[in-house]
Amino acid sequence: MVDVQNRPDNRNIPVDQVGVSDLRYPITVLDRHRGRQDTVANITMTVNLPHHFKGTHMSRFIEVLNSHRGEVTMWTVLHILHDLQERLDAERAHVEVVFPYFLEKLAPVSRAPGLMEYECAFVGESGAGGDDFVLSVKVPVTSLCPCSKALSRYGAHNQRGHITIEARSCTVAEKPEELIWIEELVEVAEASASAPVYALLKRDDEKELTERAYDHPVFVEDIVRNVAQKMMADPRVAWFRVTAVNQESIHNHSAFAKIEWRR
Amino acid sequence: MVDVQNRPDNRNIPVDQVGVSDLRYPITVLDRHRGRQDTVANITMTVNLPHHFKGTHMSRFIEVLNSHRGEVTMWTVLHILHDLQERLDAERAHVEVVFPYFLEKLAPVSRAPGLMEYECAFVGESGAGGDDFVLSVKVPVTSLCPCSKALSRYGAHNQRGHITIEARSCTVAEKPEELIWIEELVEVAEASASAPVYALLKRDDEKELTERAYDHPVFVEDIVRNVAQKMMADPRVAWFRVTAVNQESIHNHSAFAKIEWRR
Amino acid sequence: MVDVQNRPDNRNIPVDQVGVSDLRYPITVLDRHRGRQDTVANITMTVNLPHHFKGTHMSRFIEVLNSHRGEVTMWTVLHILHDLQERLDAERAHVEVVFPYFLEKLAPVSRAPGLMEYECAFVGESGAGGDDFVLSVKVPVTSLCPCSKALSRYGAHNQRGHITIEARSCTVAEKPEELIWIEELVEVAEASASAPVYALLKRDDEKELTERAYDHPVFVEDIVRNVAQKMMADPRVAWFRVTAVNQESIHNHSAFAKIEWRR
Amino acid sequence: MVDVQNRPDNRNIPVDQVGVSDLRYPITVLDRHRGRQDTVANITMTVNLPHHFKGTHMSRFIEVLNSHRGEVTMWTVLHILHDLQERLDAERAHVEVVFPYFLEKLAPVSRAPGLMEYECAFVGESGAGGDDFVLSVKVPVTSLCPCSKALSRYGAHNQRGHITIEARSCTVAEKPEELIWIEELVEVAEASASAPVYALLKRDDEKELTERAYDHPVFVEDIVRNVAQKMMADPRVAWFRVTAVNQESIHNHSAFAKIEWRR
Repeated sequence: MVDVQNRPDNRNIPVDQVGVSDLRYPITVLDRHRGRQDTVANITMTVNLPHHFKGTHMSRFIEVLNSHRGEVTMWTVLHILHDLQERLDAERAHVEVVFPYFLEKLAPVSRAPGLMEYECAFVGESGAGGDDFVLSVKVPVTSLCPCSKALSRYGAHNQRGHITIEARSCTVAEKPEELIWIEELVEVAEASASAPVYALLKRDDEKELTERAYDHPVFVEDIVRNVAQKMMADPRVAWFRVTAVNQESIHNHSAFAKIEWRR
Repeated sequence: MVDVQNRPDNRNIPVDQVGVSDLRYPITVLDRHRGRQDTVANITMTVNLPHHFKGTHMSRFIEVLNSHRGEVTMWTVLHILHDLQERLDAERAHVEVVFPYFLEKLAPVSRAPGLMEYECAFVGESGAGGDDFVLSVKVPVTSLCPCSKALSRYGAHNQRGHITIEARSCTVAEKPEELIWIEELVEVAEASASAPVYALLKRDDEKELTERAYDHPVFVEDIVRNVAQKMMADPRVAWFRVTAVNQESIHNHSAFAKIEWRR
Repeated sequence: MVDVQNRPDNRNIPVDQVGVSDLRYPITVLDRHRGRQDTVANITMTVNLPHHFKGTHMSRFIEVLNSHRGEVTMWTVLHILHDLQERLDAERAHVEVVFPYFLEKLAPVSRAPGLMEYECAFVGESGAGGDDFVLSVKVPVTSLCPCSKALSRYGAHNQRGHITIEARSCTVAEKPEELIWIEELVEVAEASASAPVYALLKRDDEKELTERAYDHPVFVEDIVRNVAQKMMADPRVAWFRVTAVNQESIHNHSAFAKIEWRR
Repeated sequence: MVDVQNRPDNRNIPVDQVGVSDLRYPITVLDRHRGRQDTVANITMTVNLPHHFKGTHMSRFIEVLNSHRGEVTMWTVLHILHDLQERLDAERAHVEVVFPYFLEKLAPVSRAPGLMEYECAFVGESGAGGDDFVLSVKVPVTSLCPCSKALSRYGAHNQRGHITIEARSCTVAEKPEELIWIEELVEVAEASASAPVYALLKRDDEKELTERAYDHPVFVEDIVRNVAQKMMADPRVAWFRVTAVNQESIHNHSAFAKIEWRR
């Protein structure tokens, strides 16, 4: 059969990225405490296309992914990238895997267990400059406004916020114990807000969290600075970006802050 | 040219609704204070299709809409429905128009003006039983948890919530002054929560709203009951449905409540 | 500690539904071929609240869900409903569980395997009238326009469409072999469109599907009627609703059709 | 009253961006043919925060926006940036304004008029390096697969795709006639695909577009290269990025391609 994609192209324009996006796929990721966790990912995979080829071969992206049978860790992301480079004869490959990840958390007083979801992402790239890997974790938190607390005779407006931390390691981890874990970034984020959020809270817990939030007011600016302090102090971190978005309870828009840093 | 849609169909199955959806269209709606307001709508328009026809004529939906030049009030919705019935030779027609609507609100203390957006909808239906029209308004508010306030030595968790009120009038309004206005449903919703939300607040306003919310704690159950009380007391209202969704600041899920009522 | 929710309410207005929504939770569902499948759900759980109670107890919803440890089948949905009625002292309970479900499909010619995702839902309700259970499956398909084919000298516009089938059984299944399976509704939907869609296709497959779609043109009206014919002929089906939405490739809006039927 | 935001901060960490996001606002933009067009925007506005300040003043963002009364052009975006820098005592300011824009298009044969929506964005930044402005336009199109056409005896799969062009001018336009217009980028995108899409098509138009698409098959790779050729040939363009996403009608995932270029 004809292979239209392999035909030459004379426009003389290389394509930076070509591939598949919005691909849903069941995956298994590493779980620090339970070993493995099954989840469902949204995947983008691309390669570069030299100027002299008309098209890439889209089915090979899926074949490469299938060959890894849904196992997705930092290491398999790098393998997928290298397989894409080889199968598609490309200099560069890029992979993004976005997925919900669940952690069992105990309520602060009652110790009642509940499952919390964190939206995570693995973003990998392979090219002339070597391999690159970024872990991203989005953490819901409570934030309580310092200004509202200082001004008001009682109460203070608070709300759900989302902290997203993206991090790149100084060196490629060779063993699981050298990884920066999702669980660690969740801890960093939760310790940087007014209080963590939980799936299951009894009355004692609600009292404790209400008072804790009131005792720890933060602006979005404080949240990203608190995260930045902790990330800068971690010698494993080469680069990070943190954003905080508060769903302000007194407005219908959000408050937003961002810090990007490299060692 | 052939008219495939007009061919007979022998499966003997009528189609309840057929038409266009996800159509984006600029519209002009009535504004209680400024006369008219330009906005952008997402529109669905359908008719029923008798069992003996193979297909409807999709382009006529757009032609009917175009003939009304984007003017969308309760009355034009009814005209659009009747035009659809006639142009498409249908017994029933259904139209949904969803759009953002803006109101200028003054901050409670500083009186600083700010524009608030409310997602609104007109849903019209015309058939053997006559004409039907439902107005829907979604209002962001602050809700402060009575349980958290009662339990805690200080503070109380609060959050942004959304109240959606859908309402049907007892009689078809013949003049603007007989209408149930978007502005009226916004007032009902805001008065049923812990406090309204605003686009622009100065420090005095933030103090006032923080304290007001603390003084008026409500559960989602309270919100829908407070709305229900006001709607039941309005003799113009034949039917309503109210839902409240709180973006809980101590959880990553929402609290939800609903009441439906007819006179 | 005080129990604010248990306080009496004197507004004399019962609340139809109160509970939690947008709750993300890892679940395990039945898989016709592989026994079980792990996935991630979005869950809503509500009960009614009699007029004399001020509030429900939100944490008990999560406790009931936790007690079933994420096992979600038609039977566990009914158990969850009964547990909610009992734990929350309610006459009625309602549960919605929406989740992605994956099937391995073989490409039509090359037999290359690929994983396809279908968005599914279990909707259960329990009350004075007994138990109710509805299965919902959303299936992406190819649709090719009969009008475009008939008019044009060559080619025909085609596009991705989505068929959603919701179905209720005549009798409550007591064993897995009596269930209406997700896999069966996927087959009904795919056989009602111009062609199925796949995750992985080689050149031979692409030729086959292109020609198959051209040989089987359907309007949205045809799709819902084709589904309706098959569902009406299935003696297990007591009620169904089918909707088809085509992402028209010649427009920026969708074509829409719907049929609802009860035996 | 206390001004918490003005308090000193001793963490010694500057914040790159702080401000408001998800702000909905009615705006008026320039329309090449009709002079002005009313629409509704989603707005983000941020400034940098030096390390020694605790917080920014969120209400001033809204005040600056209000002072421009919703008039949003390339020039007012620059004014808003400068006002933000001044009002918030900041070195850098960033503004993003995303909005639907409507164009009346005539169907290719019948000349029937219809309104098409394009999602547009103005992204402005002001800092030590001067002012920056990027126009972004997202254009829905038809794409027909060259591989499917070449392989198949008849037909070819086609689908809706979206082309996003972001462009930066070589010099700041001083008059409207020097601007790169939304209308021009729409034309570039539509001429780079298999066929444009329309809101209203009669039978003659559907025939014409079906055949035109079949005569002009393109991969996503072709789309971005076709756009790139036209943009590179325009001496006003200093930089552009083009992405194409096809909602493949034979898959449930998308095909994706991207080119970024600077003169």
